[in-house]
Amino acid sequence: MARRLVAEALGSALLFATVVGSGIMALQLAGGNVAVALLANTLATGAMLFVLITVFGPVSGAHFNPAVSLVMALRGDLGRADALAYALVQLGGGIIGVCVAHAMFEAPIWQLSSHVRTGGGQWLAEGVATFGLVLTILGTVRHRSAWVPATVALYISAAYWFTASTSFANPAITVARSLSDSFAGIRPVDVPGFVAAQFAGALLAAVVARKLFDVPHR
Amino acid sequence: MARRLVAEALGSALLFATVVGSGIMALQLAGGNVAVALLANTLATGAMLFVLITVFGPVSGAHFNPAVSLVMALRGDLGRADALAYALVQLGGGIIGVCVAHAMFEAPIWQLSSHVRTGGGQWLAEGVATFGLVLTILGTVRHRSAWVPATVALYISAAYWFTASTSFANPAITVARSLSDSFAGIRPVDVPGFVAAQFAGALLAAVVARKLFDVPHR
Amino acid sequence: MARRLVAEALGSALLFATVVGSGIMALQLAGGNVAVALLANTLATGAMLFVLITVFGPVSGAHFNPAVSLVMALRGDLGRADALAYALVQLGGGIIGVCVAHAMFEAPIWQLSSHVRTGGGQWLAEGVATFGLVLTILGTVRHRSAWVPATVALYISAAYWFTASTSFANPAITVARSLSDSFAGIRPVDVPGFVAAQFAGALLAAVVARKLFDVPHR
Amino acid sequence: MARRLVAEALGSALLFATVVGSGIMALQLAGGNVAVALLANTLATGAMLFVLITVFGPVSGAHFNPAVSLVMALRGDLGRADALAYALVQLGGGIIGVCVAHAMFEAPIWQLSSHVRTGGGQWLAEGVATFGLVLTILGTVRHRSAWVPATVALYISAAYWFTASTSFANPAITVARSLSDSFAGIRPVDVPGFVAAQFAGALLAAVVARKLFDVPHR
Repeated sequence: MARRLVAEALGSALLFATVVGSGIMALQLAGGNVAVALLANTLATGAMLFVLITVFGPVSGAHFNPAVSLVMALRGDLGRADALAYALVQLGGGIIGVCVAHAMFEAPIWQLSSHVRTGGGQWLAEGVATFGLVLTILGTVRHRSAWVPATVALYISAAYWFTASTSFANPAITVARSLSDSFAGIRPVDVPGFVAAQFAGALLAAVVARKLFDVPHR
Repeated sequence: MARRLVAEALGSALLFATVVGSGIMALQLAGGNVAVALLANTLATGAMLFVLITVFGPVSGAHFNPAVSLVMALRGDLGRADALAYALVQLGGGIIGVCVAHAMFEAPIWQLSSHVRTGGGQWLAEGVATFGLVLTILGTVRHRSAWVPATVALYISAAYWFTASTSFANPAITVARSLSDSFAGIRPVDVPGFVAAQFAGALLAAVVARKLFDVPHR
Repeated sequence: MARRLVAEALGSALLFATVVGSGIMALQLAGGNVAVALLANTLATGAMLFVLITVFGPVSGAHFNPAVSLVMALRGDLGRADALAYALVQLGGGIIGVCVAHAMFEAPIWQLSSHVRTGGGQWLAEGVATFGLVLTILGTVRHRSAWVPATVALYISAAYWFTASTSFANPAITVARSLSDSFAGIRPVDVPGFVAAQFAGALLAAVVARKLFDVPHR
Repeated sequence: MARRLVAEALGSALLFATVVGSGIMALQLAGGNVAVALLANTLATGAMLFVLITVFGPVSGAHFNPAVSLVMALRGDLGRADALAYALVQLGGGIIGVCVAHAMFEAPIWQLSSHVRTGGGQWLAEGVATFGLVLTILGTVRHRSAWVPATVALYISAAYWFTASTSFANPAITVARSLSDSFAGIRPVDVPGFVAAQFAGALLAAVVARKLFDVPHR
């Protein structure tokens, strides 16, 4: 068990450091063209997701996301106590990752975001984003499990652009990003709305996937 | 059958939401650099195509495109009634996806595009684009079927750039995009020319593929 | 044999249309940022190479390049008469592809390029580019033949940027691009220097690959 | 042995030529938008890494990096004398690659960089970058060795953006890049700090990987 928790913590740290660090770098270099900055942020996040899921997947499942761990627990693929432990180390590891990103860029280690992200469109976007993420995971695991690193990485790459919220789709990263007053940040007060929408989307996807993928074909 | 239609509808909804949503996001952020916006639109569309074909392919074939379903029916790989049902749910699901994209970005749900796309160059481009798409599908299915998600995603990524029309290559998405007055839109009056060119290109590809791929090698 | 020649002609047409067409589109949209235009050109070319090699490789080998066909003939993997026929249809098909690209963008079908590409740095670049391409092909075929579409596509994507000539690396496309007065063009008078450098690089790579890959390991 | 050293030298030459050459090209074309230049530099480097590891991996292991060779020697996967020979030809081949890049762009062959890269944030970044690289290699080799070309290429693509130093993560390339007064350069006086941080990160990763990957699962 300890090894699986180290994998979840270390993977979350590297993932969240990538999201925040590449956002800082991209905005510094992009000279005001936010689309170019988001392209770089997308590239870095998608690439790192592929790497981390390949490397840590065989150890812990490579969730890095409490909404995913919850769905796996509800499906019986992960014990309930394990799911809770996963969520705690995902959040703890991820916050350390954000702090390391700040340190690398010589910014204050502890920050609070002032980036406003709220309203019906944003919540719908987070629901759609997390619905799609969980559907992608469950569908790929069911049909072509070797391709999970590729489909998750590419799904998030697409979702950064087609959802109005740039697809946080992860309660742990939402909390962690509230601690970064950068491109990737979100105001602490806006976190609960995002997290609620994410869990709603994840649960809906679990129901749909049960009907769509979990019965024998034809 | 019901499950296959749900897969086609849901996949089309996610695909068309990606095309329209990423177009809105990209143009908002690109500060007038349309090439950067189209790069983002390309990245999102290609990535989502890979995901959706991987996830839904084993359920329904993952056509999301009436021209592809027609070709499959002509080849005897899909019943004629099934092909018609596929086309209807592709269009219906896809339009819902466009509406969801508008809702996420807090734009009016129902819109009509004013984006002019007409003329001989555009029609030739749609014919070439759909010819290449169907040839890609049939050639990959014939030789390396596990790579269909990759080749279709990469073909469309290339076609967004080398065809003068940015490669709609899909009658259902052409109709659905006429309902979005955004970067990805097309005037309703321009839809018939595109759709005719698309079916022509698809049928030509079916003939060429029959000669080129469907006989034993050497 | 006829089918293999059709595959080489059709693949070259689609490939060359992609190179020229995406160059036209990219420069039109990029608002003077040539780096963004070349990024789009790179993305389209690499993506299409992956597709065409996957689809046509099992039919004809998917050379689309007289320098590659020459190397294969020297290695005894392709008959000499076949190699000559390959080169002719690669050039003929490719020129048709360039004309189709012009027609899609409603530009004059027949053009002559005025893009100056000459001098020692450019010739060295073409030699290096073609050396690397042939080494990539022979090394991948030797060790992991299923990955040829990926390595060739990615090699050319890199070579568009690290060689000073943006890596033509193909005598047929060099001639064909002299017939396009666009982003991708090359003055007819500059063609012989490029072609000579390409054949020199290809032959050197064939010698190095023989030593490096074609003997049993350890 | 000779063949393995040729593979390490030739691969390092092509890799370092790609890093430096694409940096020169990108900055020339990007019109001052450094984010666009770094995107192109990232694309070229990641693509070339995938190619070179696929092609040379079966011959020499495709390290191209003394920190990686050191870790392999400590693990007993490479002899100590071999590791030293590897490091020497990586450096020698890589410097030749940088010179060839300069020649292609008709710049002075021998240069010294004036690009300042120093300070705690930069050193932390190099430590993190090399830690992640070695962890990626050892984790992928352990679980899915066929995917090493993909994970290393994508890891470096992400690390160019999320580390404040743009991730040199390689002592040989650090020395070689001090000989290029271009986008990719580093002042000679800043090299020792980078190299020390890189070896520290690599060794830490070797320890973590031993605990995390090298014992039987569950």
